[in-house]
Amino acid sequence: MGMKNIKLTVAYDGTNYHGFQEQRGTGLATVQEVLEAALSKVANETVQVIGAGRTDAGVHARGQVVNFRSTNWPVPTEKIHLAVNSLLPDDIAVIKAEEVPLDFHARFSATAKTYRYSIYNHRVMSPLHRLYAYHEPRPLDIEAMRQAAQYLLGTHDFKSFQAQGTPVKDTVRTIYRAELVSEPPLIHLYLRGNGFLYNMVRIITGTLLDVGKGKKFPPEMKSIIEARNRTRAGTTVPPHGLCLMEVEY
Amino acid sequence: MGMKNIKLTVAYDGTNYHGFQEQRGTGLATVQEVLEAALSKVANETVQVIGAGRTDAGVHARGQVVNFRSTNWPVPTEKIHLAVNSLLPDDIAVIKAEEVPLDFHARFSATAKTYRYSIYNHRVMSPLHRLYAYHEPRPLDIEAMRQAAQYLLGTHDFKSFQAQGTPVKDTVRTIYRAELVSEPPLIHLYLRGNGFLYNMVRIITGTLLDVGKGKKFPPEMKSIIEARNRTRAGTTVPPHGLCLMEVEY
Repeated sequence: MGMKNIKLTVAYDGTNYHGFQEQRGTGLATVQEVLEAALSKVANETVQVIGAGRTDAGVHARGQVVNFRSTNWPVPTEKIHLAVNSLLPDDIAVIKAEEVPLDFHARFSATAKTYRYSIYNHRVMSPLHRLYAYHEPRPLDIEAMRQAAQYLLGTHDFKSFQAQGTPVKDTVRTIYRAELVSEPPLIHLYLRGNGFLYNMVRIITGTLLDVGKGKKFPPEMKSIIEARNRTRAGTTVPPHGLCLMEVEY
Repeated sequence: MGMKNIKLTVAYDGTNYHGFQEQRGTGLATVQEVLEAALSKVANETVQVIGAGRTDAGVHARGQVVNFRSTNWPVPTEKIHLAVNSLLPDDIAVIKAEEVPLDFHARFSATAKTYRYSIYNHRVMSPLHRLYAYHEPRPLDIEAMRQAAQYLLGTHDFKSFQAQGTPVKDTVRTIYRAELVSEPPLIHLYLRGNGFLYNMVRIITGTLLDVGKGKKFPPEMKSIIEARNRTRAGTTVPPHGLCLMEVEY
């Protein structure tokens, strides 16, 4: 049968997982562990996957991408989703399976990722959105948030929006899209970029919320970016409002 | 302070409840029990609520309405949501509180209710919708479903859409709205009427799904209604796709 490299698009509800990536020794389940267990059962051998991006505990995905290589993979590509989903809990699902060239690497081959952060902007939090959106009870000035978001577009050093204690040498990233979509009482922030620093989307959202509340003015976004200083940006909003929407190649 | 009659609009995620209404002796929690416990704690006396409609186990609500009467209610109306929500689990929330005339009765005063049934029409079920939409993997002919739904409009005897073994003498109801809203891959069926028989929305949805799959033709809806026979309609779809959206007075 020869070596195959298989790309899977995976969706999950991150509520009950300790993030995507294997956390050896914590005793908590990760999405990767559960996915690898199902794939290994199908393959009848140990399967290890490469994920496009780590997602933290509580973060969701509609379009996470993984790949794995297998020499004796027994299932036709068009039936992989059926075989694997029958072994997965219903909070993880393979949406799509494709055979890809052997040099395809879910993380290194990625050219862009899109994340969405959802805010439920209403006096009372909706029980039906509590696991998938962050509650902000104060009225937000969405237009001001939109103006501030424009400063994110393009290539910048985003060091101000990187979690402290996780130094990455190169903190320059390019943001292609920074859009606020209003579906009252939900506000979705879409960020598409060539890569994201640790907690970057959640810190950007926290900063835009400060703008929405009038605590910061839209043009301050420029100086916050230029400061390259985490303390200038807003707080890191909670993980459950975040969803990895798409990974592009 | 005098007798007050207070109307609450309540939202809940029905996943973890045995329906809205108290089921004495089952040992399972109901939304009503949990709500009454919180209200009784606020009032420092036993509070009993009247609900606009029973919702079955697993059914959700964005706009359930209840009322209760109290002679010594201690909280100003505009602060009731804060007081009660602080005592409720996060899958139940008071959205709105109003003082209403003493003769207001959440069930008997209601003039119309709107339910929504959500279908996730995609080959693979989304983990992020699994608790709030019913999975239909086969492609559906939405236009055919729309045509069939038109026969529901107006005043009819809906006996064909009443769960067997739950005889109600008067099975005539008036449907004001029967609309399918497509947000691919989601399809939402909105039904607004002056009242609904037991399982009526779920049986109508099951029947429209038969039409969407080509198992029934749209004009058959007319003869199914006229038959006044439960066996002519489709299956009862599961509760978790159903949501009580609004009760009007």
